[in-house]
Amino acid sequence: MNDPARHHSPITMSDVLDAQRRLRAHVPTSPAMSYPLLDALVGYDVRVWVKHENHLPVNTFKVRNGTSALTALLERDPVAARRGVAAATTGNHGLGLAWAGARLGIPVTICVPQGNNPDKNSSIVSYGARLIERGSIYDEAIAACDEIVEREGLTRIHSTNNADVLAGAGTMTAEFLEQAPTLDAIVIALGGGSQCVGAVAVRDAMKPTLAVYAVQSNGARAQHDAWRDGVARHGQPVRTFAEGVATGATYDLTFAALRRGVNDFALVSDDDIAQAVRDLLRITHNVAEGAGAAGLAGLRALAPQLAGQTVGIVLCGGNLDAARLSVILAGGTPT
Amino acid sequence: MNDPARHHSPITMSDVLDAQRRLRAHVPTSPAMSYPLLDALVGYDVRVWVKHENHLPVNTFKVRNGTSALTALLERDPVAARRGVAAATTGNHGLGLAWAGARLGIPVTICVPQGNNPDKNSSIVSYGARLIERGSIYDEAIAACDEIVEREGLTRIHSTNNADVLAGAGTMTAEFLEQAPTLDAIVIALGGGSQCVGAVAVRDAMKPTLAVYAVQSNGARAQHDAWRDGVARHGQPVRTFAEGVATGATYDLTFAALRRGVNDFALVSDDDIAQAVRDLLRITHNVAEGAGAAGLAGLRALAPQLAGQTVGIVLCGGNLDAARLSVILAGGTPT
Repeated sequence: MNDPARHHSPITMSDVLDAQRRLRAHVPTSPAMSYPLLDALVGYDVRVWVKHENHLPVNTFKVRNGTSALTALLERDPVAARRGVAAATTGNHGLGLAWAGARLGIPVTICVPQGNNPDKNSSIVSYGARLIERGSIYDEAIAACDEIVEREGLTRIHSTNNADVLAGAGTMTAEFLEQAPTLDAIVIALGGGSQCVGAVAVRDAMKPTLAVYAVQSNGARAQHDAWRDGVARHGQPVRTFAEGVATGATYDLTFAALRRGVNDFALVSDDDIAQAVRDLLRITHNVAEGAGAAGLAGLRALAPQLAGQTVGIVLCGGNLDAARLSVILAGGTPT
Repeated sequence: MNDPARHHSPITMSDVLDAQRRLRAHVPTSPAMSYPLLDALVGYDVRVWVKHENHLPVNTFKVRNGTSALTALLERDPVAARRGVAAATTGNHGLGLAWAGARLGIPVTICVPQGNNPDKNSSIVSYGARLIERGSIYDEAIAACDEIVEREGLTRIHSTNNADVLAGAGTMTAEFLEQAPTLDAIVIALGGGSQCVGAVAVRDAMKPTLAVYAVQSNGARAQHDAWRDGVARHGQPVRTFAEGVATGATYDLTFAALRRGVNDFALVSDDDIAQAVRDLLRITHNVAEGAGAAGLAGLRALAPQLAGQTVGIVLCGGNLDAARLSVILAGGTPT
């Protein structure tokens, strides 16, 4: 098929619609809310919509990604699905897979480095997933994952380099545009890029005028730099408390699509992100993790150029632990 | 009509269904979620469902009450509705009315004492309501409200002594039973009693075996004591940081219904409530205000007698301010 989007995007709208069909029985619609006090905070006559992905099961949009990947596997290869899946992750991707696996009866193995966030570990285990703690850094957890995938014949579900994961992430934007059809722009925290790539695919089909903005912390700006100069990155520094956007690399499946489809990119500081956590708590009474607050931090940076527009931000995750929340409420920025 | 429930209840299921009809276009369904780690915390093989009323607009079930009262007024007396409504409140009732008034085009006046929570005041104002700060205590705000109601011909919407308010509160239980039909019991924080009276009316019609448990702080136990001995109370002490249950009196419209319909009553300490705020944050990543956490605190007290049952708790509000949240996260109990 001569679909121009295919040349630059790993997914199209039909993939997103198919994911939406598979998710329907499992993942509820997340609310889109507006708050007059948030509009006042942002200023520049911007009307803000907040997409509350933190209200989904396991408090993160990653439940879309995990459920999309596992339901697709179940339809495509039920024997492999019953054998089980594995992933290396330090957080929300593991939670999304564990939740979806419990619901679909698919065994899930999650490999994490030793010393990983104990709250996330215990939550992953609480959904019946097998947790393997190995090595002191993420790369060793990846090696452990590779080993167990090989030995047990499992299916690896990468957090980004997986078209079903990207299509699942795209369901967020499709849903958001149905709830708030007047959106002129959407501001999205960028880690691996699944949400932005999903947004671009949906935008191209549903509302070509929608601007897609990405946000990263300036302590972990690999994808930003690559988006600017077109040169893929690996092993770049990641100094941010927002682990959901702590990515030191570009990813094969998302890089070209991001480069083509993202309209602009905001870099914010971790102080800005912490301030956004405080503002979201005070105004919306929601807990945002760092990446979950990055949308607001990015919007505040972009607001002058978005004056008068209707803009969606994505509160993409709420899994902030109490210790870091305490630091932030005291006016500080976690390290 | 010879409806036996009428003898003891200010509302029946048909009132709740009528409120549900009126709310449909305005108030979304709030999610009901389960968390394996919460089941593990409660123990006694209790399966816990959490009704996330904190995910509703203005973060509280009071949006049901306010919307129910204003939509009923609009149908019954549109001229009075356009003239406006007034209420004396220190918090969530005012937020619910302000939100509903903005949506329905009904002018709303909220009277609060001076020194009221500034976050709640600014949120009320942000929805276009007129805020009148008068006097140093709640009773003086009530007097100010009476005066303005008289002078301007407004309609007073009491937070509890109003059948439309109670019917609105009842929609929570009707919705919860549809989402979790296997519930054996429901544990509800009791302030004025709207949610409990609503639950009793719904229980009587939808599932007579459902046990309804009420919870108060032992620093504000007037309704508990009255439920036990049948003697109405007024002007009793209210020492609790959970302002949503800081009630020193019984109310004419709810007292008899509570006495007849509530199966049992748990008294918990403010320390228990603060612990429940911490547990809900760690496990569900939701902010509960004191009253919002009282359901969990009550369930933990009741758990031995609910062993093996499926129990719903209501996270009825999330409007905790950052200062009190900081105290609680540090292991303390606000005063």
